Amino acid sequence: MLNVHLVPHTHDDVGWLKTVDQYYYGDRNNIQHAGVQYILDSVIDQLQKDPARRFIYVETAFFYRWWKQQNQSTQRIVTQLVNEGRLEFINGGWCMSDEATTHYSAVIDQMTLGLRFLNDTFGECGRPRVAWHIDPFGHAREHASIFAQMGYDGFFFGRLDYQDKARRMKTKEMEMLWRASESLTPPLADLFTGVLPNGYNPPEGFCWDQSCDDAPIRDDPDLEDYNVDEIVQKFLNAGFYKANHIIMTMGSDFQYENANLWYKNMDKLIKYVNALQAKGSKVNVLYSTPSCYLQELNLANLTWPLKTDDFFPYADDAHDFWTGYFTSRPALKLYERLSNSRLQTCNQLEVLGGPKSKSGPFGEGDSDTMSKSTSVRAMGVAQHHDAVSGTEKQHVAYDYARRLATGWAHCEVLVRNSLAILSGSEAPHVFCENLNISVCPLTESSHKFSMNVYNPLGRTVSWPVRLPVNGSVYSVTDANGRAVDSQVGNVFISLKCTCYIYDMKSSCLLPLLSVRWYNASAGNNKESPQTSGAYIFRPNSSDPFVINKTAETQIVTVSSTVQEVTQWFSPWVSQVVRLYEGHRELELEWTVGPVPVADGLGKEVITRLDTDIKSSDYFYTDSNGREVLERRKDYRPTWELKQTEPVAGNYYPINSRAYIKDDKHQLTVVTDRSQGASSLYNGSLEIMLHRRLLYDDYRGVGEPLSEPGDFSDGLVARGRLLLTFTPPDTAADVHRPLAQGMVLQPLLSFQDGTPSANTKLEFSGLQTDLPPAVHLLTLSQWDEDTVLIRLEHQYQAKESKTHSQPVTVNLQCQRPLTMGSDTEPNGDPHFLVTSTTAVELTTYRSPPMQIRV
Amino acid sequence: MLNVHLVPHTHDDVGWLKTVDQYYYGDRNNIQHAGVQYILDSVIDQLQKDPARRFIYVETAFFYRWWKQQNQSTQRIVTQLVNEGRLEFINGGWCMSDEATTHYSAVIDQMTLGLRFLNDTFGECGRPRVAWHIDPFGHAREHASIFAQMGYDGFFFGRLDYQDKARRMKTKEMEMLWRASESLTPPLADLFTGVLPNGYNPPEGFCWDQSCDDAPIRDDPDLEDYNVDEIVQKFLNAGFYKANHIIMTMGSDFQYENANLWYKNMDKLIKYVNALQAKGSKVNVLYSTPSCYLQELNLANLTWPLKTDDFFPYADDAHDFWTGYFTSRPALKLYERLSNSRLQTCNQLEVLGGPKSKSGPFGEGDSDTMSKSTSVRAMGVAQHHDAVSGTEKQHVAYDYARRLATGWAHCEVLVRNSLAILSGSEAPHVFCENLNISVCPLTESSHKFSMNVYNPLGRTVSWPVRLPVNGSVYSVTDANGRAVDSQVGNVFISLKCTCYIYDMKSSCLLPLLSVRWYNASAGNNKESPQTSGAYIFRPNSSDPFVINKTAETQIVTVSSTVQEVTQWFSPWVSQVVRLYEGHRELELEWTVGPVPVADGLGKEVITRLDTDIKSSDYFYTDSNGREVLERRKDYRPTWELKQTEPVAGNYYPINSRAYIKDDKHQLTVVTDRSQGASSLYNGSLEIMLHRRLLYDDYRGVGEPLSEPGDFSDGLVARGRLLLTFTPPDTAADVHRPLAQGMVLQPLLSFQDGTPSANTKLEFSGLQTDLPPAVHLLTLSQWDEDTVLIRLEHQYQAKESKTHSQPVTVNLQCQRPLTMGSDTEPNGDPHFLVTSTTAVELTTYRSPPMQIRV
Repeated sequence: MLNVHLVPHTHDDVGWLKTVDQYYYGDRNNIQHAGVQYILDSVIDQLQKDPARRFIYVETAFFYRWWKQQNQSTQRIVTQLVNEGRLEFINGGWCMSDEATTHYSAVIDQMTLGLRFLNDTFGECGRPRVAWHIDPFGHAREHASIFAQMGYDGFFFGRLDYQDKARRMKTKEMEMLWRASESLTPPLADLFTGVLPNGYNPPEGFCWDQSCDDAPIRDDPDLEDYNVDEIVQKFLNAGFYKANHIIMTMGSDFQYENANLWYKNMDKLIKYVNALQAKGSKVNVLYSTPSCYLQELNLANLTWPLKTDDFFPYADDAHDFWTGYFTSRPALKLYERLSNSRLQTCNQLEVLGGPKSKSGPFGEGDSDTMSKSTSVRAMGVAQHHDAVSGTEKQHVAYDYARRLATGWAHCEVLVRNSLAILSGSEAPHVFCENLNISVCPLTESSHKFSMNVYNPLGRTVSWPVRLPVNGSVYSVTDANGRAVDSQVGNVFISLKCTCYIYDMKSSCLLPLLSVRWYNASAGNNKESPQTSGAYIFRPNSSDPFVINKTAETQIVTVSSTVQEVTQWFSPWVSQVVRLYEGHRELELEWTVGPVPVADGLGKEVITRLDTDIKSSDYFYTDSNGREVLERRKDYRPTWELKQTEPVAGNYYPINSRAYIKDDKHQLTVVTDRSQGASSLYNGSLEIMLHRRLLYDDYRGVGEPLSEPGDFSDGLVARGRLLLTFTPPDTAADVHRPLAQGMVLQPLLSFQDGTPSANTKLEFSGLQTDLPPAVHLLTLSQWDEDTVLIRLEHQYQAKESKTHSQPVTVNLQCQRPLTMGSDTEPNGDPHFLVTSTTAVELTTYRSPPMQIRV
Repeated sequence: MLNVHLVPHTHDDVGWLKTVDQYYYGDRNNIQHAGVQYILDSVIDQLQKDPARRFIYVETAFFYRWWKQQNQSTQRIVTQLVNEGRLEFINGGWCMSDEATTHYSAVIDQMTLGLRFLNDTFGECGRPRVAWHIDPFGHAREHASIFAQMGYDGFFFGRLDYQDKARRMKTKEMEMLWRASESLTPPLADLFTGVLPNGYNPPEGFCWDQSCDDAPIRDDPDLEDYNVDEIVQKFLNAGFYKANHIIMTMGSDFQYENANLWYKNMDKLIKYVNALQAKGSKVNVLYSTPSCYLQELNLANLTWPLKTDDFFPYADDAHDFWTGYFTSRPALKLYERLSNSRLQTCNQLEVLGGPKSKSGPFGEGDSDTMSKSTSVRAMGVAQHHDAVSGTEKQHVAYDYARRLATGWAHCEVLVRNSLAILSGSEAPHVFCENLNISVCPLTESSHKFSMNVYNPLGRTVSWPVRLPVNGSVYSVTDANGRAVDSQVGNVFISLKCTCYIYDMKSSCLLPLLSVRWYNASAGNNKESPQTSGAYIFRPNSSDPFVINKTAETQIVTVSSTVQEVTQWFSPWVSQVVRLYEGHRELELEWTVGPVPVADGLGKEVITRLDTDIKSSDYFYTDSNGREVLERRKDYRPTWELKQTEPVAGNYYPINSRAYIKDDKHQLTVVTDRSQGASSLYNGSLEIMLHRRLLYDDYRGVGEPLSEPGDFSDGLVARGRLLLTFTPPDTAADVHRPLAQGMVLQPLLSFQDGTPSANTKLEFSGLQTDLPPAVHLLTLSQWDEDTVLIRLEHQYQAKESKTHSQPVTVNLQCQRPLTMGSDTEPNGDPHFLVTSTTAVELTTYRSPPMQIRV
């Protein structure tokens, strides 16, 4: 028997053309007909009509909204459907995260948020067993690693390079075993992975949603157009997979709003196709789920090909590389990353401040509206593959940003309470949101103020602070009254660029920095009408324009604290190069925008670093900010690439770093947000900074990516790149802590005047720094009397002679713990410590460690 | 308290852009998203969720299809919902009939078909109490009369002239008492009639169907865009009616396919609006139905203005007169009318032939697929306001015609059986469908054949028959062997037109006949972009082009049987004028088409009759083939008309006749189908014959009305007009029987050779002719042992000195019956005779008389 598994499903974007709440309610249906509340209403109704029917649901952000609006009777019915396996949760994170532009820490948080809700609500029967990333535009190895470590049985996705897919279809390699980590001992990060045959859509002609026009099954012989025989034959002609089991995704974007249409016709399909078994047919159709399908594949006891690299970049045709979104909406990408840092700070201060931080002098909150959950949910939503990816409509991008801001506003109350508790002073703390544009009303108006710096890392950092002030002489002291090295104002010296800073003991870097722009395709060339857009990167030419070859005007500042060079390339591109006292990295602060488009040319702006390193077509990019993968120009490890886009086809996402190296030298760039990067020439590394485009790229968003600015017609983006130039074998020792410091930044808060006498000026949650290899990933209140701590080994296997070794941490637990690279060898991922008082969740592995306090 | 009655409803066209079965199944949703099976599924589900919810359903053609596909459990649930008044049937005919182009006999049949199904299925609780014609494009007085006589409590509709509506809104005359007959004694044909405030749509901003984009009620304060207060205020600002009750139609075309969207938001609307009562609000919102609303109006004990004319023509703006569809698709209009004649013949022969006619030598049939029901249903569907109206898409027009053909094919089996039984001979009867184009294989090939003529009227008629033959000499005899007057071939004499025929003892008519065409508006003039289309008639100029002023070529045939003149006006317009021996009427057989449009001009072809009659702007048109209404140029009896379209604004529908008159003379034209007609000049009467247009007219059909022909690029239409020229006071004595003879035509069937010896050659179902005033409207098998007979008085009050009087019919019943004009004075409409064995239906009045046999 050939078993055809019909998998009824809906794919509900947590924001895209509409905001997440507009999607939930079915508001603004003129933009897109989609209302998730009705989908869940309808599916629950239809599942009750026949115990054979199945449905899977994926996005917990939506399910949570719906669930809390249901009465007890409906909740009981849903629970029963879940217990009976008729409604099955799949993936189960708050959203279906993007894989190219997300940081692993935020991905783990959003998975935790969704899975925890399912666990709290449904227990074991609500546990998703299959990861399901049917829509993201390429697939990161780190995501697969996380899924494996979370205990998923398998992973299904829909999008991969068209050449790869064609090959896999031919060689029947659509299913595989993905070995998703170079550090973890197999099978710790091994994950069964299946490519869905039809993306995530139904076979052609079998879409029975209200949004589709396919013919229904007309089985009343008294009416016109009886078509049962025709439909059954068409179905039997569909193609087959490796095993005696086929999965057919019966659904698509926001489908099942009227589930009756689907189920009524699938009921008939099953009835009429299976009726042919009496006449010798060997085809059996059934309602199923991905986990049921996977179970059948397991029973078949087959062997699968091995996959060790990832699925980037994604192209769905020869000139259609989805490598633009690696950089799209750079300001949103930064804001999401900063919000993560703030949320972690908020989480930590909630634990450290104790219960009163949720209900203290600056505000109250119950568990449902408490500051943290708002922020956590905003971050959860922001991980969606049309959120931080930058592929949403402009009004939706604003909504994501607004949610993050609201989340932080709630967190501020908690942070104020906590700081008051920890310092013993209720003097209010002020936060300055606009330091990036040198605005802080308190510091600009006050003659005397104090600044509190909270460092969320597990170790001491040195962090230069720049504040806008109006005075000319300031005395700066630390908590103990000791003077702090400081400087007011700039000393401007105009110079030609020379090899000026190089205490770095290496070749001259500055002259090799250039800012360039690719001319974005307008879709009017003969090869293909594909344009550059929010998703797609497609330059008209492989040679970018240099913005200003000589960078004539420069201003240089020198002080004991920082050495600084400002380069003006054009009115819309500038760069400040800084070297801080005692730091080994060079900081490039780039400012790009408003990108001019009055010339009718869309522009994709890169910074390019050209060195003498003999990198020979190889370069390296991180995966979701964690492990690093080797890349090679015009090459894919898995198949013989026919390169059709020499620039866009060599772009890869970077989330925290990229590097090139030879035997002696390594140039590493640590970024402050996700970006696209490539190495197209020997010794060269380029990073895309900003994009402004004039055309939509036909992937549904329906808008050109042209972000409006606050004060001008285009968005100005500003960011930082940290460059280190080291021998290859010590590079990780520098870039690992540097990148974690970029991810978790100190939180500054201000108070007017001097602190009152009894104020405690210093506090540490740690008795001593964590070992260099150990990163405090999470410190968060789990519930009233439980705290979640996640520690991880932050070095990849073999990258550091010093640190890529097991390390022991004493957490005042009964036994010391040994941690290997990236995780501990016992297979319990990320979260290594189990104290005697810990409650270990057995149903979900994503939040596996909790310490009752 | 102001009570706002929310009436959830769907308007399901029985064919329009898609065929009736495509609408039922939801097939071809690329044309229009509509699937009635899902509407009923969904509504039944949603009604069960809350006993307060209500729904009305109208079109039994769809409900019947759905009902027979349901299992017993669902049927039980539906029955309960009906019994509890939660699901209420409204109108309840097989379709919502067109009012301009239907014949009353077919309307009564289609109402009977729908109402009988409801009665058989649900009994008293299924009885519709309100007539509901929310969409037809103008309203006929005869329809209101039929509804009143059927016992409906009231009538609601949506479309009336925009000037009339504006006036009624202002004077609060949206509700009225319609006195719908000049013959019946009030209140026999009195009907409460209400104009719906918003057509049949929901108020702006409150459409919550899946097909709408209005904002849902977002009442979760945790989500963005909470809008309860805004929605409630908007609702309270809606306008009010005369009583303390408002009806709001919450639905529209094919809505409620996903009824949850509607009910979920209406539930919230009711909850939040009524919640304000606690704060002093006087507005109460409730789920309701038209009959509940009507009951409240009755209790209010108000008086209503009186209406005695009708609601034609309908205009929705100054240049937008819906008077084109009176003529659109003339061939379909004829075929529908002929099919009615055949169906009545079929019905009669089923009764006369007895049970074996359903299961005889030429075929079998059970009650569900028996020939009659197929034909009845096809006729029922054809009465729809986008069927015989001609306002459907071309492929749908074909579907209606195909259904009628299939219906007749089924009837043929029954007729053959019945004729075999009645004649005592099983020799098969052949039917010649194509006599209109002189094709009949049997008569063209046989040297000796017999012809059977069945006359479905209740009295003897004289009917000339023309057959295509190949011989040159034929001997024609009747059943008794007596010679019948006959002639083979034509004698051609070429003449100039002169006053040639007029044994009619009147002025010369022939020179006053002309065929002309109006140039259809292409929408490019400055007053309005309105075009002529399937619905709209809008000539560019009030002066039509004369096709050929002199009609140079003429052929005249003279025989003892018929005098015949053929006029060729152009290659695409010709006319044959005939006067038959012993007949008082002149027959005009017109042939129009293919209408040429290569000149880029759409054409609306009329025939115009100009006489010396001093008609002084008055003319007369029938209503659905029954009573006749007075019309006056540029005038409406109900309001002061501002005439904006001097031609189209004076067009009225005629179904059987039109006339002009003065003190001495009356010219009456009897038609073979529904057409548009007007009198724009003193003594002139014009009738639109055919239309071919190049543009859609923006009323949804999305096609220009340009019917393809079988052998050419445009449809050729052919038809007959019967002209009588009489004194006014004897006109009805001629045109009443003439029109009934046109509606119920003899059925011809043929047999090769001579009948066998024992064949009974003559048969009559009547012992003697019915009195001239009495028309046999229906003779039909009701069930196995019951027959339905409908007799009616066919003269309007006062139109005939001889016949507009009560008349007594002896039907071998226990008491003789007295019949008044149009009906019997006791108020039991149409159906006067109740034998001692009759079973009188008390639940429905439409099929009120049955005689058990």
